[in-house]
Amino acid sequence: MVRVSILYPNTPGARFDFRHYVATHMPMSIRLLSVHAGFRGVSVERGLSGATAGSPPAFIATCHFLFDSAEDFLAAFLPHAEVLRGDMPNYTNIDPVIQFNQVLIAQ
Amino acid sequence: MVRVSILYPNTPGARFDFRHYVATHMPMSIRLLSVHAGFRGVSVERGLSGATAGSPPAFIATCHFLFDSAEDFLAAFLPHAEVLRGDMPNYTNIDPVIQFNQVLIAQ
Repeated sequence: MVRVSILYPNTPGARFDFRHYVATHMPMSIRLLSVHAGFRGVSVERGLSGATAGSPPAFIATCHFLFDSAEDFLAAFLPHAEVLRGDMPNYTNIDPVIQFNQVLIAQ
Repeated sequence: MVRVSILYPNTPGARFDFRHYVATHMPMSIRLLSVHAGFRGVSVERGLSGATAGSPPAFIATCHFLFDSAEDFLAAFLPHAEVLRGDMPNYTNIDPVIQFNQVLIAQ
């Protein structure tokens, strides 16, 4: 299983509209991607703090898609890449860190 | 619900022993933390690539603990912090990025 992580760094001047992201962008992403083979789940988080209370989080927001394989994710994502990327300026000016991960433990 | 993320940056000279991490460190962490109130889950991943196939991942390894609240996580973690931190040199020389996140969507 793979987890595809989209991480929005907490950089100076970063803009991030959680209202649009949670009410519009992510529901659209989930609707488009979750119907494809291999979709296993999704989570979205808002960064609260770093290791110590009150310290800034490294990432403003994070999103993780769980799929059976990287190929399944790409087959789900690529047909909608233009629409989903096109919506990004509506909620952020951040260039996200994207990473494919192999899931080793899931409980 | 909160997700506590421990992210190991893929820095030059980074050492990471997945065998010790997956066979020893994480089972110990899960055994110690999962018995506490508020534990909801855990996942561990190995970074495969960045956004494009073959590009290096930003993080060598990632780990996410799911708890009802940050207070529940701290109540579970702090009594074992010394033991768990003490085991880190056995698998890595990386100073991890740690972040507390509020879970907004979980499917």
